[in-house]
Amino acid sequence: MWDNDGMQQFFNAPEAVVDEMLSTLTELFPMSRSEPASGVRIVVRDDVESAKTRVVVLSGGGAGHEPAHAGFIGEGMLTGAISGDVFASPSAEAVLAAIRHTTGPRGCLLVVKNYTGDRLNFGLAVERAREEGIDARVVVIADDLALGVGPRARGVAGTVLVHKLAGHLAEAGRSLDEIEALCRTYSAKIVSMGLALSSSLVPGRGGERRSAELGLGIHNEPGRNAVSPADASHAMALVLDPLLDHVNRTHGDATKLVVLLNDLGGCSPQELLVLTRALLERIGPSRISLLVRPAALMTSIDMRGFSVTLAPADDVLVEALSSSTKAPAWPGVIVPRRVSTFAPRLSAPLVHDDADTRDAALGALVRAAAHALVAGASDLDALDAAAGDGDTGTTFATFARAVLARLDEDTLSTGKYPGLFRDLGRIAAHVMGGSSGALLSIFFTAAATKLAERGDDDAARALLYGASRMTAYGGADVGDRTLLDALVPALGALSVGLDAAAKEARSGATKTASLVARAGRAAYVPEEKTRGNVDAGAEAIARVFEALAAAKTAS
Amino acid sequence: MWDNDGMQQFFNAPEAVVDEMLSTLTELFPMSRSEPASGVRIVVRDDVESAKTRVVVLSGGGAGHEPAHAGFIGEGMLTGAISGDVFASPSAEAVLAAIRHTTGPRGCLLVVKNYTGDRLNFGLAVERAREEGIDARVVVIADDLALGVGPRARGVAGTVLVHKLAGHLAEAGRSLDEIEALCRTYSAKIVSMGLALSSSLVPGRGGERRSAELGLGIHNEPGRNAVSPADASHAMALVLDPLLDHVNRTHGDATKLVVLLNDLGGCSPQELLVLTRALLERIGPSRISLLVRPAALMTSIDMRGFSVTLAPADDVLVEALSSSTKAPAWPGVIVPRRVSTFAPRLSAPLVHDDADTRDAALGALVRAAAHALVAGASDLDALDAAAGDGDTGTTFATFARAVLARLDEDTLSTGKYPGLFRDLGRIAAHVMGGSSGALLSIFFTAAATKLAERGDDDAARALLYGASRMTAYGGADVGDRTLLDALVPALGALSVGLDAAAKEARSGATKTASLVARAGRAAYVPEEKTRGNVDAGAEAIARVFEALAAAKTAS
Repeated sequence: MWDNDGMQQFFNAPEAVVDEMLSTLTELFPMSRSEPASGVRIVVRDDVESAKTRVVVLSGGGAGHEPAHAGFIGEGMLTGAISGDVFASPSAEAVLAAIRHTTGPRGCLLVVKNYTGDRLNFGLAVERAREEGIDARVVVIADDLALGVGPRARGVAGTVLVHKLAGHLAEAGRSLDEIEALCRTYSAKIVSMGLALSSSLVPGRGGERRSAELGLGIHNEPGRNAVSPADASHAMALVLDPLLDHVNRTHGDATKLVVLLNDLGGCSPQELLVLTRALLERIGPSRISLLVRPAALMTSIDMRGFSVTLAPADDVLVEALSSSTKAPAWPGVIVPRRVSTFAPRLSAPLVHDDADTRDAALGALVRAAAHALVAGASDLDALDAAAGDGDTGTTFATFARAVLARLDEDTLSTGKYPGLFRDLGRIAAHVMGGSSGALLSIFFTAAATKLAERGDDDAARALLYGASRMTAYGGADVGDRTLLDALVPALGALSVGLDAAAKEARSGATKTASLVARAGRAAYVPEEKTRGNVDAGAEAIARVFEALAAAKTAS
Repeated sequence: MWDNDGMQQFFNAPEAVVDEMLSTLTELFPMSRSEPASGVRIVVRDDVESAKTRVVVLSGGGAGHEPAHAGFIGEGMLTGAISGDVFASPSAEAVLAAIRHTTGPRGCLLVVKNYTGDRLNFGLAVERAREEGIDARVVVIADDLALGVGPRARGVAGTVLVHKLAGHLAEAGRSLDEIEALCRTYSAKIVSMGLALSSSLVPGRGGERRSAELGLGIHNEPGRNAVSPADASHAMALVLDPLLDHVNRTHGDATKLVVLLNDLGGCSPQELLVLTRALLERIGPSRISLLVRPAALMTSIDMRGFSVTLAPADDVLVEALSSSTKAPAWPGVIVPRRVSTFAPRLSAPLVHDDADTRDAALGALVRAAAHALVAGASDLDALDAAAGDGDTGTTFATFARAVLARLDEDTLSTGKYPGLFRDLGRIAAHVMGGSSGALLSIFFTAAATKLAERGDDDAARALLYGASRMTAYGGADVGDRTLLDALVPALGALSVGLDAAAKEARSGATKTASLVARAGRAAYVPEEKTRGNVDAGAEAIARVFEALAAAKTAS
């Protein structure tokens, strides 16, 4: 939990971890736990009395594998679970107490992972329960293919499939004999393999994390061998190929599969999605009858790794895994399909609305304003250098040149304001990019829409609305040392005339020298760097309006 | 993904991550994505045509926050989502294409997190959609309390609550006006704060991870300040106290709360349970009206951290969050309760069944066997030293001494075999511990049960059954160089007499010198270390039977 670099994981006292986790489950879900003072850690369904009318299914083992095992408690899955300390088997006494607490006349099946401690403690508990007249049985799960099929195979994530199978059969009212037999049959067919980039980190134990290994257990046992996967797909191949090889040899390569992808506890959601894709690509969706939704199911505290579990699919298994359960950690199943796509309807880069009329006088005004921006580029860049990255002039000039080009080729809609503003908005978004392009595009586009909606021709009012949209999306308002400080007063005076508007724009721009930036990149620049300088954007607006006024007078 | 120490995360090419993730979603869930060649990344519900009859709800932003945003697509939540690159806003063109593809006559609400890029690109798309006659609106979420309430507040995990609220209202047939107004009202009340032990690690970007910070954004922005939490509860307090303080000042300290605990992507399931407990303890379950089930909802690739989101609870919000949705990543809600416990029924440490009769002759035999084990302790330890940890003799002697003590105080049930075996089984489990204690206890307990079940008195047959249970749970069989190599032949000869049994035991023990260990700790010891030595457990059995035969003859 702690090392010299500070806290590594979110835990409290290491010895409190298991009890904290189990207690939390009972706060969130309909489960109860044995009193902490009892010294045993049993979690059972709240409705354990009604569960007794069916075969009871229990599981458990060391802690540190959460959500296994208590997360799988609920109707249709486990009746209860017994937890030991982290990576240590619970005592036989704890298992026996769980059997006593839960089991009714139809008996009890204990699903146990193949680890010596678990086998012996659950085994002893079963023998003592039988001595007490309770019909208890054990099924040992040994699905880890890493050490070969056989008695040395460990029990890993495949155990969760048996939890679901047993719980489904119990819920369906099947007898203990039937459930035991089916669980033995299916567990013999389940194979798993894991790969981790780093081993687990147990609270309070410290130690170095080992690097990438294939075929590791869930108690931080060393893996079968060290590996150096090149990427996620390679890691998946390392795990999947031996599994598929085994399944193909044992059941034929046409067998459809039940597939489980288990996060060993340290994968990010992003990695799990990428791994899922690698899995689906390598097996092929058509061969997968059912995929348990990828999730952390049987973990090894904080291990950045995954395991895959395969089983040949048949009706019994598919039905059992597909049925509903109230177990909170069961993620459900998916029938994967091929990637589904559609063709989005994208805009043509620029509109050439030739049906629009042209207005030579308006075109000339636009041209004058554009020239002013091109001519002022270096001045504006210099003004911007103190507050930003010194590109305001260049950016506006880029826009202006594109507008001039459109005028030259006669593809700018100058005949009506809505068409003109729409075109200017498209050009700004297309050629300027970044925040300023988006803002200028919002300004002109909103003005165009406003005019079209209103059906009138009050361009000044429409542009003021556009300015308000810049404020809404950009966050800056008049007084925040932006181009709005020149633009808004100018638009307000536009009904008087362009000369008045130009004066207001200049006056507004001048005022920005004493304003403090509160938006955009300049807001993060010390005030003394901008004080005394006019804001580059406001200066650009002033020059545009001055150019418009001069052009109007000259015409 | 890679550094000098090898692969750190399960990714393929960094530039492929986002497309791989989105494609995977469409393989798993009823969603479609825009063709990758389109250059835009849009994911929509498969049933987008029927969704058009209601208000459409869209969201999106930079990638790297998975399952946000596409994981929240589904009936009752989002209609679609638009993704940019990792931590980069999608283009306005992409957002506009999504609006075009999804939106019907009832309009569209875009839920946008308060980041400049998102505000501008979603804003421009909305303005262009409106120009095209589509009624689109934006609600900006600014729930992060780290930088104070106001326009600089970032949008973080609280956004997911607004997704659910908007989706619920849309599904209920409410109008765009109503949904927009309610989303504005509620989003103004939602506050969040995060804490991470290490910052995120973006595929392909490398860089050092920063250490613990409070109040960080979800794009790896630096936090408000560095922190050094002492443990999980302290970390939770650092996050929760400013949030509760704000809520109490704004809404009063009696206000019931909606609470969301978000894994920022790098917490293990164990840590999330411990953090949940810390959260519930600090707020108190009675003040929590509804808890969104703790999960990774709005992440920052691989960031080991969490955030908490609070909102005052009322009927509208509680109903909206509680309603069902098909969005695959919505984890559901919980009404937390106090820890629920029960008293397990534990066994008395040892049975004193005074109703049992005593049999002096049998008692004398048991005493003789026990004396043999005590006397042989150091010999047996020496034999075991080559193969194990040299404690076989000590362990058996501990058992034997406990048996002698029970004989001395006349609390051993010597009158009938079932009672004797049951007592020996309890003593073995209680005083020996470990694997050998469990195995010996299984042996005697199973034999006792067998005799009680059968109602006969064939002790040899019952003990052979006990030996078979040792094999079943322990994994070793005759021939594996364990005590079974002496025990099973001896029990087989018991019907002939104790002399015959002792001879078989000795013969079996002798054979173990040439056997290879295949079970227990000795299986991991090189063969040459054990070859030529008799197995310590088998030797113990031989000595026991020799002592029994001698005592029988003497009596």
